[in-house]
Amino acid sequence: MRIIGIDPGLARVGYGIIEIENERKILLDCGVIETGKDKKEEDRLYEIFQDLNELINHWNPTSAAVEKFFFYRSSTTISVVQARGVIMMVLASKKINVSEYSPAQIKLTIAGSGKASKKDILDAVMYNLDLNKPPKPDDSADALAIALTKLNEDGFN
Amino acid sequence: MRIIGIDPGLARVGYGIIEIENERKILLDCGVIETGKDKKEEDRLYEIFQDLNELINHWNPTSAAVEKFFFYRSSTTISVVQARGVIMMVLASKKINVSEYSPAQIKLTIAGSGKASKKDILDAVMYNLDLNKPPKPDDSADALAIALTKLNEDGFN
Repeated sequence: MRIIGIDPGLARVGYGIIEIENERKILLDCGVIETGKDKKEEDRLYEIFQDLNELINHWNPTSAAVEKFFFYRSSTTISVVQARGVIMMVLASKKINVSEYSPAQIKLTIAGSGKASKKDILDAVMYNLDLNKPPKPDDSADALAIALTKLNEDGFN
Repeated sequence: MRIIGIDPGLARVGYGIIEIENERKILLDCGVIETGKDKKEEDRLYEIFQDLNELINHWNPTSAAVEKFFFYRSSTTISVVQARGVIMMVLASKKINVSEYSPAQIKLTIAGSGKASKKDILDAVMYNLDLNKPPKPDDSADALAIALTKLNEDGFN
């Protein structure tokens, strides 16, 4: 089983790929898709489309976990929701099964509390993946936490 | 010059394609991309991706006009914004120049008031395109109004 966790955004899309091998969780890759700040929004969405396609073609994950959104106010988050639409569409186009988790669900599952801090999440990610230093860049820890939430749900604690 | 107007949605994406020929506006096509209600959201986004690609490959519009969104509350509209992200991305992938207009801007430009009714918009669309009956399906009139807003801005009154 190989899972991709995704933390959606327009400027930065965090991702983390974990494989289960003999009941052990192995970190295969993590990082961030960054889009050009000087580009038009629609061109940035197309960058996400292209880079995510490439990433998935390379790693061939069998399932995906994506952060779920609920409520929006500013035009910034409209951009983020639009980016999430592109991400969900790419996963569907690859016939990858997608699970969705709210931020509170992720914190509760990974760090034992829906109000866990960034630091708590990072510690839990490092503990779960047996890492001796934090995953880089920082944003990718959130994507790994999302992937670990799904693995936990599937019984890989 | 050939323009596609798009009224974004997850269940129904309205579209209308207008060509300028000798300063006359000619309706080439209008309709709705409908997605399966029993499908998962991500699969519906992928349907929009596929159908819009097909439509654009067929008509080859040189520019596009899309309704702009501002403010969201319910989870229903999160779906609509996600669909809009896919639509914008497809347009960027085809290197089509995109203009965005708010509902009030469209009403003002087409029917002379930001508070124009559905009927006012429909009448204006029929008048502008010299149609003797309303375009079918109903939703496509909104997409045509969006395209006409862009044409008006470009000086084709």
